[in-house]
Amino acid sequence: MISQEELFKLFSETRADSEKICSYLETEDYVVQPVVDISPPKWHLGHTTWFFEEFVLKKYQKDYKLFDENSAYVFNSYYESVGEKVIRTDRGNLSRPTVDWVYKYRNYVSNALSKFLSTSKDLSEDILKVIEIGCHHEKQHQELLLTDIKYILGKNPLLPEYNQQFEENIIQNFPKDWIKISEGIYEVGHKGGSFAYDNEFGRHKTYLNDFEISNKLVTNAEFLEFMKAGGYEDVLLWHAEGWDWINTNGIKAPFYWHKIEGQLHQYTLQGLQKLNPDAPLAHISYYEAFAFAQWKRMRLPTEFEWEIAQEHFEWGSRWEWTESAYMPYPNYQKADGALGEYNGKFMVNQKVLRGSSVATSTKHSRPTYRNFFHPHLRWQFTGLRLVK
Amino acid sequence: MISQEELFKLFSETRADSEKICSYLETEDYVVQPVVDISPPKWHLGHTTWFFEEFVLKKYQKDYKLFDENSAYVFNSYYESVGEKVIRTDRGNLSRPTVDWVYKYRNYVSNALSKFLSTSKDLSEDILKVIEIGCHHEKQHQELLLTDIKYILGKNPLLPEYNQQFEENIIQNFPKDWIKISEGIYEVGHKGGSFAYDNEFGRHKTYLNDFEISNKLVTNAEFLEFMKAGGYEDVLLWHAEGWDWINTNGIKAPFYWHKIEGQLHQYTLQGLQKLNPDAPLAHISYYEAFAFAQWKRMRLPTEFEWEIAQEHFEWGSRWEWTESAYMPYPNYQKADGALGEYNGKFMVNQKVLRGSSVATSTKHSRPTYRNFFHPHLRWQFTGLRLVK
Amino acid sequence: MISQEELFKLFSETRADSEKICSYLETEDYVVQPVVDISPPKWHLGHTTWFFEEFVLKKYQKDYKLFDENSAYVFNSYYESVGEKVIRTDRGNLSRPTVDWVYKYRNYVSNALSKFLSTSKDLSEDILKVIEIGCHHEKQHQELLLTDIKYILGKNPLLPEYNQQFEENIIQNFPKDWIKISEGIYEVGHKGGSFAYDNEFGRHKTYLNDFEISNKLVTNAEFLEFMKAGGYEDVLLWHAEGWDWINTNGIKAPFYWHKIEGQLHQYTLQGLQKLNPDAPLAHISYYEAFAFAQWKRMRLPTEFEWEIAQEHFEWGSRWEWTESAYMPYPNYQKADGALGEYNGKFMVNQKVLRGSSVATSTKHSRPTYRNFFHPHLRWQFTGLRLVK
Amino acid sequence: MISQEELFKLFSETRADSEKICSYLETEDYVVQPVVDISPPKWHLGHTTWFFEEFVLKKYQKDYKLFDENSAYVFNSYYESVGEKVIRTDRGNLSRPTVDWVYKYRNYVSNALSKFLSTSKDLSEDILKVIEIGCHHEKQHQELLLTDIKYILGKNPLLPEYNQQFEENIIQNFPKDWIKISEGIYEVGHKGGSFAYDNEFGRHKTYLNDFEISNKLVTNAEFLEFMKAGGYEDVLLWHAEGWDWINTNGIKAPFYWHKIEGQLHQYTLQGLQKLNPDAPLAHISYYEAFAFAQWKRMRLPTEFEWEIAQEHFEWGSRWEWTESAYMPYPNYQKADGALGEYNGKFMVNQKVLRGSSVATSTKHSRPTYRNFFHPHLRWQFTGLRLVK
Repeated sequence: MISQEELFKLFSETRADSEKICSYLETEDYVVQPVVDISPPKWHLGHTTWFFEEFVLKKYQKDYKLFDENSAYVFNSYYESVGEKVIRTDRGNLSRPTVDWVYKYRNYVSNALSKFLSTSKDLSEDILKVIEIGCHHEKQHQELLLTDIKYILGKNPLLPEYNQQFEENIIQNFPKDWIKISEGIYEVGHKGGSFAYDNEFGRHKTYLNDFEISNKLVTNAEFLEFMKAGGYEDVLLWHAEGWDWINTNGIKAPFYWHKIEGQLHQYTLQGLQKLNPDAPLAHISYYEAFAFAQWKRMRLPTEFEWEIAQEHFEWGSRWEWTESAYMPYPNYQKADGALGEYNGKFMVNQKVLRGSSVATSTKHSRPTYRNFFHPHLRWQFTGLRLVK
Repeated sequence: MISQEELFKLFSETRADSEKICSYLETEDYVVQPVVDISPPKWHLGHTTWFFEEFVLKKYQKDYKLFDENSAYVFNSYYESVGEKVIRTDRGNLSRPTVDWVYKYRNYVSNALSKFLSTSKDLSEDILKVIEIGCHHEKQHQELLLTDIKYILGKNPLLPEYNQQFEENIIQNFPKDWIKISEGIYEVGHKGGSFAYDNEFGRHKTYLNDFEISNKLVTNAEFLEFMKAGGYEDVLLWHAEGWDWINTNGIKAPFYWHKIEGQLHQYTLQGLQKLNPDAPLAHISYYEAFAFAQWKRMRLPTEFEWEIAQEHFEWGSRWEWTESAYMPYPNYQKADGALGEYNGKFMVNQKVLRGSSVATSTKHSRPTYRNFFHPHLRWQFTGLRLVK
Repeated sequence: MISQEELFKLFSETRADSEKICSYLETEDYVVQPVVDISPPKWHLGHTTWFFEEFVLKKYQKDYKLFDENSAYVFNSYYESVGEKVIRTDRGNLSRPTVDWVYKYRNYVSNALSKFLSTSKDLSEDILKVIEIGCHHEKQHQELLLTDIKYILGKNPLLPEYNQQFEENIIQNFPKDWIKISEGIYEVGHKGGSFAYDNEFGRHKTYLNDFEISNKLVTNAEFLEFMKAGGYEDVLLWHAEGWDWINTNGIKAPFYWHKIEGQLHQYTLQGLQKLNPDAPLAHISYYEAFAFAQWKRMRLPTEFEWEIAQEHFEWGSRWEWTESAYMPYPNYQKADGALGEYNGKFMVNQKVLRGSSVATSTKHSRPTYRNFFHPHLRWQFTGLRLVK
Repeated sequence: MISQEELFKLFSETRADSEKICSYLETEDYVVQPVVDISPPKWHLGHTTWFFEEFVLKKYQKDYKLFDENSAYVFNSYYESVGEKVIRTDRGNLSRPTVDWVYKYRNYVSNALSKFLSTSKDLSEDILKVIEIGCHHEKQHQELLLTDIKYILGKNPLLPEYNQQFEENIIQNFPKDWIKISEGIYEVGHKGGSFAYDNEFGRHKTYLNDFEISNKLVTNAEFLEFMKAGGYEDVLLWHAEGWDWINTNGIKAPFYWHKIEGQLHQYTLQGLQKLNPDAPLAHISYYEAFAFAQWKRMRLPTEFEWEIAQEHFEWGSRWEWTESAYMPYPNYQKADGALGEYNGKFMVNQKVLRGSSVATSTKHSRPTYRNFFHPHLRWQFTGLRLVK
């Protein structure tokens, strides 16, 4: 269990990190919501703050005075059991509260919670746990902040850069190889002893068959071969839903790829760049990952294969699509009340991604982490690794 | 024909007026587009500026240097024959160019055009005419700025006020009466000699039957009687499309009406207020105007009845729905080229509104002015006057 | 006023005509509804029967026994004030009642009404009028039967013929000429003394300017020139809504035109045929009619211009789009009750068509007849005539 | 491997069964398609016939003459690699080919294939296998025929019965009990030696934890308790997508339930009946199954738990939703070519159902059978069994 001092430090660092991410933005960038899946940056800043006010200060800090009675209404997200929420598609239509207001709200709550943590004596485990969840919750939103900002700027016809220092493409400069894992019973899931989400517990046995997994992520160059071979036009490589999806949406390449005067480019957080063939592929859907593997006559790993094999390879620059559907582990039990909505309610029609990405917050990746998205979504830094 | 000096003055005043309207906004208010029919305020400011750059400076000012090569792309509107346009539903997703950029763009173009007007000798009629159109075009957008701002703030759950000094509700404190007009041939349309849009020419004869028209606009109190009598529930009062529209959208009252603890309120540019029963009704669709008249066993005027009768009554605080569909006058001819897109292309499926409103720009109302909107739209200051 | 004997004859003929039209169908053809605007043939047969049962027999025939309690529910159409209706989009999903049942229903009601007409003494004018309306109502549905059958068969990939004897294309074998009409006051609308719909009354004065109108309908050959000249690609020829409509729906030619091995064909009620360049153009929308006229630098007639000029030219094989919006005549008053829904409720967002077509029922065309459709609809036999 | 004689018998019986199912229909019932998920009965009859013509007779029967060149086009389904298909939403708009034609087509192909089977000597395993698949493919469509017919008649406002002899509700008249299964490695999947689909192979090991499973299906009475306890209103019981689904669609009860004068009824293939509380629950979505289990503080079985436990309980009247997502078994390999589209392309976003139902064809159920549907679909005979 985390100590009160460690938590104070975690809290302070986390709050500062979010603001650092936003320091490169113009006021206008905080406001817009181009599609329903992404949220305006000011909403992320407000929502992560609301979490601490709603679940900690309001409940445990005696005589706590809310910063503003209306805030809960605007910054609640999917916690349907706590008050009314602003429907998700409307977040981008709210010019008020202003960005300035949001920063004042953050300061007010950060100060109140810092004081609460530094002056309260012997806070109960339950309270420490909720604050710890709040920090990790904010770290999740830090990754979304980066990917949502990339979307907001990357869909703007002026293609403005975000931050010249942010390097997305970590080249894997070592020879390609296949790692062999033998058939047998393995244990998967989090062992406890440090923070993890409810969906990573409890540790349990699973049976794996023999398999071989690549030590490297698939690169842009490899995916270009698939494109040149007509991969997007061959129905037999695709799931029926994937085929409908690429045709309905006119998908012919990974997200953020642009052909400019015959030359392939990629929009990155550093702005528009020539496509680097050696960089690990990013911004593909599960459908594209599957079709690529099908074309290679290989497949994606399951999440348990990935978890067992990951000790033997380098990971961390791309979220890796797995074949596994997002489902509860044996004996999974939702937490009671509003926090119980956190993970369990999404356990249908989503695919598990393992690893982490260049946008993942510090101290927020581990081998048992289960990320999940609908199979068609591409605005995260998603890539893939092959199994045969 | 307007003189070069008069035009200089008109131009300067018009440009200043737009900026005055926006002086009450926060930066964030300039950015959002809650529904497709309205546009972000910064778009209005940029688009009216683009008009002068595209149709005047670029064509007639020797050695004119564009402020920014990308501006035309972003601020073009419906002029499909001039370059690519940003599709209308995407305007609210553009955080860049910033508000600050837009003001710099305005200053650059205002200065260039002021200099052009004050230093060029003997500008041709054609050039003066385009600049004059540009000023009236900007006046049209001033009314849209106000009504779009009202929408942006009025749909925000915090219901912020825009400007405490802006009075919407001009009470008509005189007795109700009926004005009789006799059957016969009348002349309608603009006589020429001063500015008017192409859709107001040419003046022509029309035959009117006997009719009587009210000297007052319908009030909130009168519309409340219709509501209390079940007007929204009686199918026989409505057009088939109107009936579908109220039921699909759950319409049960004029736009911006709120019932708060049993008391009717109205959102205004001064913020939320108790509903004033004596104020002229505002923010209704043509369908509601028609159903109300049907319930009264009366009707709406045609646009020609209104034009002939208007000398005899007070008008100017509400756009008045007429029964007339928006169609060309006899011998109407579209202007050639891009400016020809201005009015003629909308002459189907829209209803004519006559008069003007509290949001109409100065020097932008006249008895022959033909405003037009789709019958279901309500975000303008729309009301009605009865005929029997 | 029609006499009881004449009405008996009219009723008998009308009922027989509907069944004649359907005699060329297979049972399956009676059932389907490919798009919301058309109705299954069995629905037309049932609905026209329901009209007589609901508005005549149920009200005026003593001891009348309904054929089936459920029929009203299924065959009501837009008469929202009379019981619940089956929503229009669902008509094609009803396999029951069967076609056999519908014919039994028709016979039952036809017999009952024939008996009522032949044995009742001195029926009141009101009753005779409702039966007369019922006959004309059925005649309207006869035209819809033919055009809906054409749609059902013409959208079937097998393109089956309907009836080898049905000739759609009446060639106008006379020289093209322009008819001049002089400016002045004219009277329009129905004079009374014989059957007409409420929307044709009352006769009233209108002022027309000088105009010239063609003595011939526009032909396929003329429209082909427009197509070859790039008419569908020139935005300046189109209404904004028309431009959206052709682009959203990929419209590049009139409805029912097919290019087969480089050769233009047209689906007709006689099956697929080579396109006859001399035949009058059919199956175009108002938007296409307008764009064609714009390209010719001419225009469409208003409905009153058409009505005044029609004595001087041949008409009757194509419904002719006019520029006029469908609106009430001066002093128009809706009938009370359910029959009041008949025409008035459609008087918004529709365009008037004048004349009649090859599919129009006998005794169902006259110079004052006002047909109306939304501007994008093309499954009727719609054409155009130019004015300059 | 099945012998040629056995196959002849299987083929004959299967073809006859389909026609027996349709013998209770009116011609009109064969034609309609009320929603995209169901198909018109005549399409099922034609499509299963097309399968034998396309994959057997056309390829292997020397000098085979197609019954009609157009048939492939109309009756192809999702086999995108074989010619163009009629898009699925359009099947209900095709009145031709007629039902009569379809029966002639069936006879022609049945006779040809019977002759082929009875006169060809020593047909290869490959050919026998395709014919065997064709028979099982038709058996699958027999279940769809019954459930689609139930939908067509059950959504008709007249609620006609299908067949008075068809009993849906098999009551389980024995005491409720829990079957314990111990933790360990188990083998699942088909052993081979008789027919099974590609998705059931290969047999492989899996690790199961301790669990207890009910010996009975959940009944209507049990589900009514959930409803009375407010199950449909408690957001914490539902997946986020399930909650959206019930609210968007106004779902408040299982499909085919009707409240008539305060009394619960159920539409069945025998017509409308009072709801039998002891009957096994039917026509629920996965979302409802999950919410019910959540409310009971239990869960659904995984497909492997079900497969291992099924020897110990009675099953066969309801398809049982499992928690398992539909995914390939280890070493699953799609068949080459068009038949490869059969199963693999659906392995995303669907849930596995195990068992079989009252509508399942004879000889078409086995413990390893993997049925799959999207989680919101309810028109199959779907129920559930609890695990704790």
